[in-house]
Formats: sequence, structure tokens, C-alpha cells
Amino acid sequence: MEELKIDFEKSGGLIPAIAQDAETGEVLMLAYVNEESWNETLKSGCATYWSRSRSKLWKKGESSGNVQKIKEILVDCDNDTLVFKVEQIGGAACHTGHRTCFYRKLVDGKLETIGEKVFDPNEVYGH
Amino acid sequence: MEELKIDFEKSGGLIPAIAQDAETGEVLMLAYVNEESWNETLKSGCATYWSRSRSKLWKKGESSGNVQKIKEILVDCDNDTLVFKVEQIGGAACHTGHRTCFYRKLVDGKLETIGEKVFDPNEVYGH
Repeated sequence: MEELKIDFEKSGGLIPAIAQDAETGEVLMLAYVNEESWNETLKSGCATYWSRSRSKLWKKGESSGNVQKIKEILVDCDNDTLVFKVEQIGGAACHTGHRTCFYRKLVDGKLETIGEKVFDPNEVYGH
Repeated sequence: MEELKIDFEKSGGLIPAIAQDAETGEVLMLAYVNEESWNETLKSGCATYWSRSRSKLWKKGESSGNVQKIKEILVDCDNDTLVFKVEQIGGAACHTGHRTCFYRKLVDGKLETIGEKVFDPNEVYGH
């Protein structure tokens, strides 16, 4: 067993975390964590990121209820990237209502939508 | 079909690309691409990143022969993160000789090695 030592400094305090569906292996999203959100993730057992656009702690699913329950955490060889293997409550990680944020595939220089839409964002976030 | 428009500007010219084994779904590594390495990836059909430490174009597997053949490219909802679904030649993505850079799992606050070692880095990179 090795000591855990995440290198938050290399990238100015924020490191990427890849959320992956623990069952299917599907990559759901990528977001960033700082030390505060990392500690909050460990404490709460739910993926908590740092929102770069809003400059605040962002518990994924806070408003939609679609939280990400942590099943396993992997750390890369450089200690500066994480994989969160999660159970995605509600079945959708993306604010567009798709299962994954990676719902478009590059085909002949254009983007084809291949991902499944699980909810209507207007109903979840609207008004 | 939508127009492809990668947003390189938001993160100062570099966006993260997640390399995922196209067969198994395993996340192999995360690295960064700028516009030059993105174009090179499309042109060559092999994952080409921008090395932040060496500040140069980095064709993955250039020295080890373990290139990553692109099978599919996914783009996220914000156009600022990529998934490269790849065939990992040589079976190992990590410079430590492990199949994936994410070969350690968080267990009780420490890191346990769970990943398989495919090659001995001293034999591949060493003298």
C-alpha cells in the first residue's frame, strides 16, 4: 500500500476527475476537483467538483437530484488525475439530459448524436 | 449532424483527452491536446497529445512503439473535452508498464495497486 498524495499544485490547484459508470464502464463526464471538493467527495461519498465557471463547490446533482455515488476511486501514475467510478442516480450525468456528456461522435468531420436522452432538461431545471 | 467546433480557448489552448480502451472500456490515461496535436491525431489516426512537461508534440508510443490507434472520437457537451477510443498497441498505456495509468485504487486512505503490469519499463525505455 502506498501513501495517498494528490498533486494539486501542478495544475494550479485543480485536477481533472473522470466520472465513469461503475457498471457499464461508460465515461460520463469530466470535471475538476480542488482540495476542498476532494475532501468533500471523500467525506460525503458523492462526487463533488469545483465549478470553474461559478467558482464554487459543486456537488454534482445538487439541483437535479442526480448525484453520483462513489463506488471506487482510481489515481493515476502522476497523482494528478482521478477516476471516480460512480453509480449515476437518475441515469443521466449530462445537463442536456443525456446519459453521458460524451453523446456525440465524430463522423466525417461532423458530430453525430449517438447518446441516449434520459430526461428533458426543461422539466428538471426549468422555470 | 452538427458542425465540429472544439473550444481550445477556454482552457488556454489545451483541452483534456481521455484515452479509453475501445474493447474493454477501461480508462487508460488522460493527456492534453492543443490544436496542432488535434489536427495531427485526425491526420495520422494515432493519438497525439501535447506534452505539458516537455512543451512539444507527443505522439503517444513514439519511443516505446505502443501507439494508440484511434477507433472513435467522442466530444463532450461543452466541446472542451474528448474521449479517444483506442486500440492500445503493446497492451500498455502507462510508462510504468501497467495497462492503464489508473492502476492504483483508493482503499482506506491509501493506494493499493490493482493494475496488471504488461512490460518492464527498464527494458522498453532503459539501456
